[in-house]
Amino acid sequence: MPEMPEQQGALPHNSVGLTEPQVFEFDEALELSCGRKLDNYQLVVESYGELNEDKSNAVLICHALSGSHHAAGYHSVSDTRPGWWDDYIGPGKPIDTNHFYVVCPNNLGGCHGSTGPRSLNPATGKSWGKDFPPLRIRDWVSSQARLADRLGIKQWAAVVGGSLGGMNAMRWAVEYPERVRHCVVIASAMKLTAQNIAFNEIARRAIRSDANFHDGDYMGENAIPRDGLALARMIGHVTYLSDELMGLRFGRELRSGSFQRGLETPIEFQVESYLRHQGDRFAESFDANTYLLMTKLLDYFDLAREYDNDPVRAFTHAQCQFLVVSFSSDWRFSPARSREIVDALIGANRDVVYTEIESAMGHDAFLLPNERYQAVFQTYMAGVANEYSNGGEG
Amino acid sequence: MPEMPEQQGALPHNSVGLTEPQVFEFDEALELSCGRKLDNYQLVVESYGELNEDKSNAVLICHALSGSHHAAGYHSVSDTRPGWWDDYIGPGKPIDTNHFYVVCPNNLGGCHGSTGPRSLNPATGKSWGKDFPPLRIRDWVSSQARLADRLGIKQWAAVVGGSLGGMNAMRWAVEYPERVRHCVVIASAMKLTAQNIAFNEIARRAIRSDANFHDGDYMGENAIPRDGLALARMIGHVTYLSDELMGLRFGRELRSGSFQRGLETPIEFQVESYLRHQGDRFAESFDANTYLLMTKLLDYFDLAREYDNDPVRAFTHAQCQFLVVSFSSDWRFSPARSREIVDALIGANRDVVYTEIESAMGHDAFLLPNERYQAVFQTYMAGVANEYSNGGEG
Repeated sequence: MPEMPEQQGALPHNSVGLTEPQVFEFDEALELSCGRKLDNYQLVVESYGELNEDKSNAVLICHALSGSHHAAGYHSVSDTRPGWWDDYIGPGKPIDTNHFYVVCPNNLGGCHGSTGPRSLNPATGKSWGKDFPPLRIRDWVSSQARLADRLGIKQWAAVVGGSLGGMNAMRWAVEYPERVRHCVVIASAMKLTAQNIAFNEIARRAIRSDANFHDGDYMGENAIPRDGLALARMIGHVTYLSDELMGLRFGRELRSGSFQRGLETPIEFQVESYLRHQGDRFAESFDANTYLLMTKLLDYFDLAREYDNDPVRAFTHAQCQFLVVSFSSDWRFSPARSREIVDALIGANRDVVYTEIESAMGHDAFLLPNERYQAVFQTYMAGVANEYSNGGEG
Repeated sequence: MPEMPEQQGALPHNSVGLTEPQVFEFDEALELSCGRKLDNYQLVVESYGELNEDKSNAVLICHALSGSHHAAGYHSVSDTRPGWWDDYIGPGKPIDTNHFYVVCPNNLGGCHGSTGPRSLNPATGKSWGKDFPPLRIRDWVSSQARLADRLGIKQWAAVVGGSLGGMNAMRWAVEYPERVRHCVVIASAMKLTAQNIAFNEIARRAIRSDANFHDGDYMGENAIPRDGLALARMIGHVTYLSDELMGLRFGRELRSGSFQRGLETPIEFQVESYLRHQGDRFAESFDANTYLLMTKLLDYFDLAREYDNDPVRAFTHAQCQFLVVSFSSDWRFSPARSREIVDALIGANRDVVYTEIESAMGHDAFLLPNERYQAVFQTYMAGVANEYSNGGEG
């Protein structure tokens, strides 16, 4: 799917190369789980690799809270950073674009091009802002099912996601059992813990209490609640890393190289400087209403709620095979949460491969290079590729 | 020391009863580690029990970040809550006021009555505010040594502290070895980790970015950075609890009892409501400049820095015996940090008792009832009481 222009030479050989987002417009109203509906919406999507003749080699990538449709490759030869999962999507990589047709939409309610709070509300002619309808993960699944229809994909070879994306993938498996052959759930959970909810609420309060938030109407006021967004990101970011990793990466290293005895500077330690940078960069690009919407959606997600709170019953509805992966130092979505998923799958007599990867990288491990993770993921996906009719020859 | 008025009947029998803070004025200038000095300062202090004749039964309590001099007992018979460590200080309790004379000052730089940012700067006739000198824990130790002098206490039977208070106690042990017989260090560390510093910096940024902070001059503007303080407290509070405890206490319980399908209310889960309450209450009483000062002091503390970063060398200077206690689910000051203290003490050939207490309560465990913790603490302190000449008969 991606063109391979001559400039490609500048990009790594195992990259999907230059990619270009595509916009899909949907004019049929989408009924939302809140009872409201979107009369129309658009999804911005990147795709990599080639869809085979019988359209059996498509993989859906579900992104996490701060992710986007730009999962792999580069938008220009001068890009210094590739898409957010470039380590795992590309020729020869676990999600091998020599075999798979990989589709990654920006989620509905997002702020990277799909319809969300920044989009025009046709009823008012102004941006939706805080009036954008609250969403649930099942609404993402519905909108993604429409995308699959548009692409002529009756069944995904695999639906794959980490963190929030893993929840999205699990919801696919129980909502459209006949449309999913494999479900890959990485560093995820069937529902958030109280501690997770607490961190989300602190992040939301940081945004809401920013004087530039204007009760959600900051766009109308030409303002951006930068401090609130930066704080939200800083809180999230610390919880995505492990204590050990932060110790290894920053320790108690000082920016100036030595303690300025008696001087109080606002930023003294490297870790403070790093976090501030992360927060500020995020605040420049992310939409505050989207952040509120997505963290609420995370809090509300509870795979088994409508199945009498019985996750075994929930998974009885799934027909696909599962790969579940967790990381030893991930305390935001700990291995215990993944084991709950695995236990429920076993209880429901589903086919599941589970691996806990040793890693000091915390929750962010699912995005980062790791030999064993890569090997397990690659092996599993090679099995998926071997199953479909055209054997990956497209 | 506390009067036992007739109203006492209303208070628990094993309480120190009604207590009244005392103010101590110090007119000799205190040289600070930053190179500046305080020409004079005051400490507000509570004390419980009776000082014996040879003044050998005094115990110094060092409070933590959000603590105060009010460690035990009640300020009035209508008080619904006693001091912050009432479970561990009182007649028959681990720090037994039948035997010990217990002294708890509010730390210099605090906001509960000791000289701090809210106090009048004699040079300007206005509150110090953000111009209050930055402090280090050694400055607390110096100011507390003056208090000991004033009370005629040459040597503490024990210096005791949890968390930040444990750092204070360790600094006493190495700065004034001849003035400390026992050092009790609970849920503490020789220095913060990068993760600890990161959480502190997020809390500080929340305060600094509150529009009511006015670059630290909020008092002059008749403003209070309430949102910033509330956020700082919420961030701190989540890290003081364990994931397990929050799960047990709140789980995913909803305020309304059921999901309001499709309705988005700002506060939905009990844990959000609880945290918000904690934050708002804190914001009403705590001073923002004190919060900045104390978290900076925490970040900078590094017991061994001036001893070539060798904690064994640091503890070689101590002469006292040590009790070190940690709690299994404390991830802010984990058992690993306590074991580092113990290893250094053993390396320095010091006498140390160490216990790791099983608890689901996280860092806050050091404040909460726990049978085994209570038993270990009580046994250790009974040994301390047996040592001094008057055997606690005062």
